[in-house]
Amino acid sequence: MERIYLDNAATTSLGAEVLNSMMPVMTDVFGNTSSVHSFGRDAARLVDESRDIIANSINAKSNEIYFTASGCEANTWAMIGIANANRSHGNHIITSKIEHPSIMEACKYLEKNGFSVTYLDVDQNGFIRFVDLLRAIKSSTIMISIMAANNEIGTIQNLKAIAQTAHEKGIIFHTDAVQLYGNMYLDVKDIGIDAMTMSAHKIYGPKGVGCLYVSNNIKIDTIIFGGNQERSKRGGTTNTAGIVGFAKAVEIANRDMRTNNHKVRLLSEYFISKLTENVENIVINAHIKQKLPQIISVTFIGVDGESLMTKLDLNGVAVSTGSACSTNSLTVSNVLTAIGLTNDNARSTIRFSLSKNNSYDEIDKAITIIKRCVDELRAYSSTYGIKTRKRKGDKNV
Amino acid sequence: MERIYLDNAATTSLGAEVLNSMMPVMTDVFGNTSSVHSFGRDAARLVDESRDIIANSINAKSNEIYFTASGCEANTWAMIGIANANRSHGNHIITSKIEHPSIMEACKYLEKNGFSVTYLDVDQNGFIRFVDLLRAIKSSTIMISIMAANNEIGTIQNLKAIAQTAHEKGIIFHTDAVQLYGNMYLDVKDIGIDAMTMSAHKIYGPKGVGCLYVSNNIKIDTIIFGGNQERSKRGGTTNTAGIVGFAKAVEIANRDMRTNNHKVRLLSEYFISKLTENVENIVINAHIKQKLPQIISVTFIGVDGESLMTKLDLNGVAVSTGSACSTNSLTVSNVLTAIGLTNDNARSTIRFSLSKNNSYDEIDKAITIIKRCVDELRAYSSTYGIKTRKRKGDKNV
Repeated sequence: MERIYLDNAATTSLGAEVLNSMMPVMTDVFGNTSSVHSFGRDAARLVDESRDIIANSINAKSNEIYFTASGCEANTWAMIGIANANRSHGNHIITSKIEHPSIMEACKYLEKNGFSVTYLDVDQNGFIRFVDLLRAIKSSTIMISIMAANNEIGTIQNLKAIAQTAHEKGIIFHTDAVQLYGNMYLDVKDIGIDAMTMSAHKIYGPKGVGCLYVSNNIKIDTIIFGGNQERSKRGGTTNTAGIVGFAKAVEIANRDMRTNNHKVRLLSEYFISKLTENVENIVINAHIKQKLPQIISVTFIGVDGESLMTKLDLNGVAVSTGSACSTNSLTVSNVLTAIGLTNDNARSTIRFSLSKNNSYDEIDKAITIIKRCVDELRAYSSTYGIKTRKRKGDKNV
Repeated sequence: MERIYLDNAATTSLGAEVLNSMMPVMTDVFGNTSSVHSFGRDAARLVDESRDIIANSINAKSNEIYFTASGCEANTWAMIGIANANRSHGNHIITSKIEHPSIMEACKYLEKNGFSVTYLDVDQNGFIRFVDLLRAIKSSTIMISIMAANNEIGTIQNLKAIAQTAHEKGIIFHTDAVQLYGNMYLDVKDIGIDAMTMSAHKIYGPKGVGCLYVSNNIKIDTIIFGGNQERSKRGGTTNTAGIVGFAKAVEIANRDMRTNNHKVRLLSEYFISKLTENVENIVINAHIKQKLPQIISVTFIGVDGESLMTKLDLNGVAVSTGSACSTNSLTVSNVLTAIGLTNDNARSTIRFSLSKNNSYDEIDKAITIIKRCVDELRAYSSTYGIKTRKRKGDKNV
């Protein structure tokens, strides 16, 4: 059976060019970057070059880039490391209700450890409201962390306005840019980002590598101890091959950004038009423009999302019901309820996430399968017709 | 110039069989292990199999193995995660003065956060003394963390006796086994280890992967937040290829343990005999038997270790002055001063660490180069002769 992968927001495949860049490192450059001898220096040079590439890609200095093992680690570090290092200035943090689980869990940890956190509501498109943000700011606010692009619905926040608001009050601004980085040029100095989370495996890089940009102007405590790695800020023997692969993925993402974005936007428009043409009673969530085109959140009214995902999987189409990091959990997506979906509709929602590697042929095949699966699930459902008719306003049914 | 790598305790090269095991994962099995669809399940299955292999290798249950990005992360997690989770039972921790920087730094962090730490002295061979351990234990002691084999001098502690002492008092026993794991069979149930740190890149596995064994009987708090990965205990998209490589490295280490240990022991004996034969006025540190044979700590009396390391490097021989994780630092090795070396002698000490991949020919060549470099440095030194003669007891010089 042909398999069609429409879950690229969970992870992408490793790019062939990326793997090629990693191969000589894996076979030959095995030194520990902390070692002073030539084996160590050979590895350290590659890591330095990679750090330069990633720093340049966001207009940061090389010594503002810290490699981590994942976006989750970078997010956890940003939240806890910045909060603790700046504790003397206050104990209040502002974030939103649609953040990644790593941010949410780190905030819960901070709440148990003397910090208070405001979770901003978002509108039906997933945007934070500036009136809420202004109202939430206190004299004790030390950090605002708002996701750049949401992983479930794709909404892209107005980072520059958030940064400006934060800086007017002397507040540090962190953004989780895992989904946006590599898809849009982010100039941290121009936008005014003080700390930013990035990850390799969302942009055809290897798994096990992320990074945190931290402006030299702000303080951050260490959360993983060790030696002198990452300027003594993050312990752990440097993953040279992974970092080289990350940098190559960044180079390619920047080189091909315009082409890829154009391709993915057209694919996405095609997918949506075909889907709405073929499947009735669906809702496409989030703003159609101010979002990543590749992330398409669709509510199939009256259909259980888990059942649909499983059925699609059995037919070779890989999609998700939400963040990969929060699957297997029975709770409803915090993102979908935050944009105003009922629990029922949140449970009826599927995330399709496309990539430059998807074809129109795959989309055509996927739509046919989706239509069949949705029809079958709705036909089996004793309540679907009733619910649908009810939604149409016929209160007597 | 031929390069001879004698710094295998800093890191080993990636094994060819290990890389082979990773290749199909990197090219084909790209799913996110947290995804429920077939792409995710394919990856999750490989990780499950790898977890089984590592669990079996130490007689643990699979759900007692948690993958991390490094030994440093696993050590930090063990110290902070176990201390915080067991805080209600007490706030005292016992460790030794010869632990890895990740343990030392984590202890310093804990001391700033309401815990007290006793750092046990060691004898001239690097062994902790049980009389000290017994004396250090208080009613508030919740954890003892003692390294399995030291990374600078190779000393192997009596883990079973430490575990027994800990358990008699209801204390949790953690060991950093990064240097020992893969070189000696460690049965965590038989020895009585409650938590143990391991790393892939010390045993010909990939960099960027480690793991922490945590007995199901003990509690540990999360330090890196995220989703449901590692049974919701450690966030971060799973590094599937790295984990598969780690498991393959473990399989090979176990398969070839006897052969490799025999080879390395003979190489080590050859190295020591050749060195003592050719270079005068040296001291081989640590107990000759109760240690990893591949780690050979040598004090070259009257020679500056940094200068010797640099000179050897210029001649193609890679060695280190201490832990790779603490190089570039100007402080004297805590391990070497703990075993009683003067600051001068600690600064004159070089760690040679051999591997199964080294040859007798390499050792011969290395010894020739070492002899020449040491002779040159001693010849340049205005104080060497004086110091040496003084050491020989001639107080009138």
